[in-house]
Amino acid sequence: MDKLLVEKARTLLNANYISTTLSTVDKNYDVNIAVITILEMVDDDTIICARFGADKTYANLKETGKGVFLVLLSSDNQTKDGVRVYVQLEDDQQEGEYFDRIKARLDQTAYAAFPLKNCLVFKITDILPVSMLKK
Amino acid sequence: MDKLLVEKARTLLNANYISTTLSTVDKNYDVNIAVITILEMVDDDTIICARFGADKTYANLKETGKGVFLVLLSSDNQTKDGVRVYVQLEDDQQEGEYFDRIKARLDQTAYAAFPLKNCLVFKITDILPVSMLKK
Repeated sequence: MDKLLVEKARTLLNANYISTTLSTVDKNYDVNIAVITILEMVDDDTIICARFGADKTYANLKETGKGVFLVLLSSDNQTKDGVRVYVQLEDDQQEGEYFDRIKARLDQTAYAAFPLKNCLVFKITDILPVSMLKK
Repeated sequence: MDKLLVEKARTLLNANYISTTLSTVDKNYDVNIAVITILEMVDDDTIICARFGADKTYANLKETGKGVFLVLLSSDNQTKDGVRVYVQLEDDQQEGEYFDRIKARLDQTAYAAFPLKNCLVFKITDILPVSMLKK
Protein backbone atom coordinates (compact mmCIF):
# COMPACT_ATOMS: atom_id res chain seq x y z
CA MET A 1 0.00 0.00 0.00
CA ASP A 2 1.05 3.58 -0.69
CA LYS A 3 3.06 4.80 2.31
CA LEU A 4 1.59 8.30 2.11
CA LEU A 5 -1.94 6.90 2.13
CA VAL A 6 -1.10 4.73 5.14
CA GLU A 7 0.10 7.80 7.05
CA LYS A 8 -2.93 9.79 5.93
CA ALA A 9 -5.25 6.99 7.08
CA ARG A 10 -3.53 6.87 10.46
CA THR A 11 -3.79 10.62 10.97
CA LEU A 12 -7.40 10.92 9.84
CA LEU A 13 -8.74 7.78 11.57
CA ASN A 14 -6.97 8.50 14.84
CA ALA A 15 -8.36 12.03 14.90
CA ASN A 16 -11.79 10.40 15.51
CA TYR A 17 -13.61 13.01 13.45
CA ILE A 18 -17.35 13.07 14.06
CA SER A 19 -17.83 12.47 10.32
CA THR A 20 -16.08 9.07 10.28
CA THR A 21 -18.34 6.34 8.92
CA LEU A 22 -18.27 2.59 8.45
CA SER A 23 -20.21 0.96 5.63
CA THR A 24 -21.10 -2.72 5.97
CA VAL A 25 -23.37 -5.29 4.33
CA ASP A 26 -25.46 -8.30 5.24
CA LYS A 27 -25.79 -11.60 3.37
CA ASN A 28 -28.67 -10.24 1.26
CA TYR A 29 -26.47 -7.40 -0.02
CA ASP A 30 -28.36 -4.81 2.03
CA VAL A 31 -25.77 -2.13 2.62
CA ASN A 32 -25.68 -0.03 5.79
CA ILE A 33 -23.68 2.98 6.88
CA ALA A 34 -23.12 4.23 10.41
CA VAL A 35 -21.20 6.98 12.09
CA ILE A 36 -18.40 5.12 13.90
CA THR A 37 -15.86 7.44 15.42
CA ILE A 38 -14.05 5.87 18.37
CA LEU A 39 -11.26 3.93 16.75
CA GLU A 40 -7.50 3.73 16.50
CA MET A 41 -5.19 2.55 13.75
CA VAL A 42 -2.70 0.75 15.98
CA ASP A 43 -0.28 -0.33 13.24
CA ASP A 44 -0.09 -0.23 9.43
CA ASP A 45 -2.48 -3.19 9.10
CA THR A 46 -4.77 -2.97 12.11
CA ILE A 47 -7.65 -0.83 13.35
CA ILE A 48 -9.36 -1.30 16.70
CA CYS A 49 -12.85 0.09 17.12
CA ALA A 50 -15.24 0.66 20.03
CA ARG A 51 -18.68 -0.90 19.56
CA PHE A 52 -21.31 0.36 21.99
CA GLY A 53 -24.32 0.93 19.69
CA ALA A 54 -24.34 0.27 15.95
CA ASP A 55 -26.37 -2.93 16.24
CA LYS A 56 -26.94 -3.33 12.49
CA THR A 57 -23.29 -2.64 11.69
CA TYR A 58 -22.23 -5.22 14.25
CA ALA A 59 -24.67 -7.83 12.93
CA ASN A 60 -23.48 -7.18 9.37
CA LEU A 61 -19.83 -7.60 10.36
CA LYS A 62 -20.61 -10.90 12.05
CA GLU A 63 -22.36 -12.03 8.84
CA THR A 64 -20.00 -10.91 6.08
CA GLY A 65 -16.97 -9.46 7.87
CA LYS A 66 -16.24 -6.71 5.35
CA GLY A 67 -16.55 -2.95 5.41
CA VAL A 68 -15.06 0.38 4.49
CA PHE A 69 -14.29 3.34 6.71
CA LEU A 70 -14.54 6.83 5.26
CA VAL A 71 -13.11 9.98 6.75
CA LEU A 72 -14.36 12.88 4.67
CA LEU A 73 -13.43 16.45 5.44
CA SER A 74 -15.44 19.05 3.57
CA SER A 75 -16.18 21.73 6.10
CA ASP A 76 -16.40 24.55 3.56
CA ASN A 77 -18.65 22.50 1.20
CA GLN A 78 -16.27 23.50 -1.62
CA THR A 79 -13.26 21.24 -1.36
CA LYS A 80 -12.97 17.74 -0.01
CA ASP A 81 -10.20 15.62 1.39
CA GLY A 82 -10.12 12.30 3.14
CA VAL A 83 -9.43 8.62 2.86
CA ARG A 84 -11.25 5.33 2.33
CA VAL A 85 -9.97 2.40 4.38
CA TYR A 86 -11.20 -1.07 3.40
CA VAL A 87 -11.28 -3.58 6.24
CA GLN A 88 -12.04 -7.13 7.20
CA LEU A 89 -13.17 -8.09 10.71
CA GLU A 90 -10.44 -10.17 12.30
CA ASP A 91 -11.46 -10.39 15.94
CA ASP A 92 -14.25 -9.40 18.33
CA GLN A 93 -12.98 -8.96 21.86
CA GLN A 94 -14.74 -8.41 25.18
CA GLU A 95 -11.53 -8.20 27.19
CA GLY A 96 -7.78 -7.89 26.77
CA GLU A 97 -5.19 -5.31 25.80
CA TYR A 98 -7.02 -3.90 22.78
CA PHE A 99 -10.31 -3.81 24.69
CA ASP A 100 -8.72 -1.82 27.52
CA ARG A 101 -6.96 0.47 25.05
CA ILE A 102 -10.12 1.40 23.13
CA LYS A 103 -12.09 1.70 26.39
CA ALA A 104 -9.57 4.25 27.64
CA ARG A 105 -10.12 6.21 24.42
CA LEU A 106 -13.92 5.91 24.66
CA ASP A 107 -13.83 7.16 28.25
CA GLN A 108 -12.33 10.46 27.06
CA THR A 109 -15.20 11.17 24.65
CA ALA A 110 -18.80 12.37 24.77
CA TYR A 111 -19.80 8.67 24.54
CA ALA A 112 -18.17 7.77 27.87
CA ALA A 113 -21.58 7.04 29.43
CA PHE A 114 -22.14 4.12 27.02
CA PRO A 115 -20.84 0.74 28.21
CA LEU A 116 -18.30 -0.69 25.75
CA LYS A 117 -19.72 -3.90 24.30
CA ASN A 118 -16.99 -4.99 21.91
CA CYS A 119 -13.55 -4.08 20.71
CA LEU A 120 -13.66 -4.89 17.00
CA VAL A 121 -10.28 -5.66 15.48
CA PHE A 122 -10.01 -5.06 11.74
CA LYS A 123 -7.34 -5.96 9.23
CA ILE A 124 -6.79 -3.21 6.65
CA THR A 125 -7.11 -4.67 3.16
CA ASP A 126 -6.80 -1.50 1.08
CA ILE A 127 -6.58 2.28 1.34
CA LEU A 128 -7.81 4.64 -1.38
CA PRO A 129 -8.19 8.40 -1.72
CA VAL A 130 -11.74 9.77 -1.61
CA SER A 131 -11.88 10.49 -5.31
CA MET A 132 -10.26 8.85 -8.31
CA LEU A 133 -11.95 11.08 -10.83
CA LYS A 134 -9.76 12.05 -13.80
CA LYS A 135 -10.56 14.64 -16.40
CA MET B 1 -42.02 5.98 5.87
CA ASP B 2 -41.91 8.85 8.34
CA LYS B 3 -43.13 11.98 6.53
CA LEU B 4 -40.63 14.22 8.34
CA LEU B 5 -37.77 11.95 7.31
CA VAL B 6 -38.99 11.98 3.70
CA GLU B 7 -38.93 15.78 3.69
CA LYS B 8 -35.55 15.84 5.37
CA ALA B 9 -34.17 13.41 2.78
CA ARG B 10 -35.53 15.55 -0.05
CA THR B 11 -34.01 18.73 1.37
CA LEU B 12 -30.61 17.23 2.16
CA LEU B 13 -30.23 15.14 -1.00
CA ASN B 14 -31.36 17.92 -3.30
CA ALA B 15 -28.89 20.34 -1.71
CA ASN B 16 -26.15 18.22 -3.36
CA TYR B 17 -23.77 18.68 -0.45
CA ILE B 18 -20.17 17.81 -1.29
CA SER B 19 -20.25 15.32 1.58
CA THR B 20 -23.02 13.14 0.08
CA THR B 21 -21.91 9.52 -0.30
CA LEU B 22 -23.24 6.31 -1.77
CA SER B 23 -22.19 2.95 -0.31
CA THR B 24 -22.53 -0.12 -2.52
CA VAL B 25 -21.37 -3.73 -2.59
CA ASP B 26 -20.31 -6.39 -5.07
CA LYS B 27 -21.23 -10.09 -5.14
CA ASN B 28 -18.27 -10.97 -2.90
CA TYR B 29 -19.54 -8.61 -0.18
CA ASP B 30 -16.73 -6.13 -0.81
CA VAL B 31 -18.23 -2.83 0.24
CA ASN B 32 -17.36 0.46 -1.43
CA ILE B 33 -18.16 4.07 -0.70
CA ALA B 34 -17.95 7.01 -3.07
CA VAL B 35 -18.71 10.70 -2.97
CA ILE B 36 -21.79 11.01 -5.19
CA THR B 37 -23.29 14.45 -5.15
CA ILE B 38 -25.24 15.26 -8.30
CA LEU B 39 -28.64 13.80 -7.62
CA GLU B 40 -32.26 14.74 -7.18
CA MET B 41 -35.07 13.18 -5.19
CA VAL B 42 -37.80 13.65 -7.78
CA ASP B 43 -40.68 12.20 -5.74
CA ASP B 44 -41.17 10.46 -2.38
CA ASP B 45 -39.92 7.14 -3.80
CA THR B 46 -37.41 8.06 -6.48
CA ILE B 47 -33.89 9.47 -6.74
CA ILE B 48 -32.14 10.20 -10.02
CA CYS B 49 -28.36 10.40 -9.99
CA ALA B 50 -25.68 11.53 -12.44
CA ARG B 51 -22.98 8.91 -13.11
CA PHE B 52 -19.87 10.27 -14.83
CA GLY B 53 -17.06 8.61 -12.80
CA ALA B 54 -17.60 6.20 -9.91
CA ASP B 55 -16.71 3.10 -11.95
CA LYS B 56 -16.64 0.73 -8.97
CA THR B 57 -19.93 2.09 -7.61
CA TYR B 58 -21.53 1.64 -11.01
CA ALA B 59 -20.20 -1.92 -11.39
CA ASN B 60 -21.44 -2.77 -7.88
CA LEU B 61 -24.91 -1.43 -8.62
CA LYS B 62 -25.11 -3.50 -11.80
CA GLU B 63 -24.12 -6.58 -9.75
CA THR B 64 -26.21 -6.29 -6.60
CA GLY B 65 -28.43 -3.24 -7.15
CA LYS B 66 -28.46 -2.05 -3.55
CA GLY B 67 -26.94 0.90 -1.75
CA VAL B 68 -27.33 3.60 0.85
CA PHE B 69 -26.88 7.35 0.47
CA LEU B 70 -25.65 9.34 3.43
CA VAL B 71 -25.83 13.07 3.86
CA LEU B 72 -23.89 13.97 6.98
CA LEU B 73 -23.55 17.53 8.19
CA SER B 74 -20.98 18.03 10.92
CA SER B 75 -19.19 21.21 9.99
CA ASP B 76 -18.29 22.13 13.58
CA ASN B 77 -17.05 18.58 14.38
CA GLN B 78 -19.21 18.75 17.53
CA THR B 79 -22.76 18.04 16.46
CA LYS B 80 -24.04 16.00 13.57
CA ASP B 81 -27.21 15.91 11.55
CA GLY B 82 -28.20 14.12 8.40
CA VAL B 83 -30.09 11.25 6.86
CA ARG B 84 -29.50 7.75 5.51
CA VAL B 85 -31.48 6.83 2.40
CA TYR B 86 -31.55 3.16 1.41
CA VAL B 87 -32.02 2.53 -2.29
CA GLN B 88 -32.38 -0.09 -4.98
CA LEU B 89 -31.31 0.53 -8.57
CA GLU B 90 -34.40 0.54 -10.73
CA ASP B 91 -33.19 1.84 -14.07
CA ASP B 92 -30.04 2.91 -15.89
CA GLN B 93 -30.77 5.44 -18.59
CA GLN B 94 -28.63 6.96 -21.35
CA GLU B 95 -31.40 9.18 -22.67
CA GLY B 96 -34.86 10.44 -21.86
CA GLU B 97 -36.54 12.86 -19.49
CA TYR B 98 -34.63 11.91 -16.34
CA PHE B 99 -31.33 11.85 -18.24
CA ASP B 100 -31.92 15.38 -19.55
CA ARG B 101 -33.05 16.56 -16.12
CA ILE B 102 -29.96 15.34 -14.28
CA LYS B 103 -27.72 16.55 -17.12
CA ALA B 104 -29.13 20.05 -16.70
CA ARG B 105 -28.27 19.84 -12.99
CA LEU B 106 -24.79 18.48 -13.69
CA ASP B 107 -24.13 21.30 -16.16
CA GLN B 108 -24.57 23.84 -13.36
CA THR B 109 -21.86 22.28 -11.19
CA ALA B 110 -18.07 22.12 -11.00
CA TYR B 111 -18.37 18.71 -12.73
CA ALA B 112 -19.89 20.18 -15.91
CA ALA B 113 -16.77 19.25 -17.92
CA PHE B 114 -17.40 15.53 -17.35
CA PRO B 115 -19.62 13.83 -19.94
CA LEU B 116 -22.70 12.29 -18.30
CA LYS B 117 -22.55 8.53 -18.80
CA ASN B 118 -25.69 7.35 -17.03
CA CYS B 119 -28.72 8.60 -15.24
CA LEU B 120 -29.23 6.08 -12.45
CA VAL B 121 -32.80 5.78 -11.22
CA PHE B 122 -33.20 4.50 -7.67
CA LYS B 123 -36.24 3.39 -5.71
CA ILE B 124 -36.09 4.50 -2.07
CA THR B 125 -36.59 1.47 0.19
CA ASP B 126 -36.03 3.10 3.60
CA ILE B 127 -34.98 6.33 5.27
CA LEU B 128 -33.30 6.48 8.69
CA PRO B 129 -31.75 9.20 10.83
CA VAL B 130 -27.95 9.18 11.08
CA SER B 131 -27.91 7.87 14.61
CA MET B 132 -30.25 5.57 16.52
CA LEU B 133 -28.16 5.56 19.68
CA LYS B 134 -30.18 5.56 22.91
CA LYS B 135 -28.82 6.08 26.36
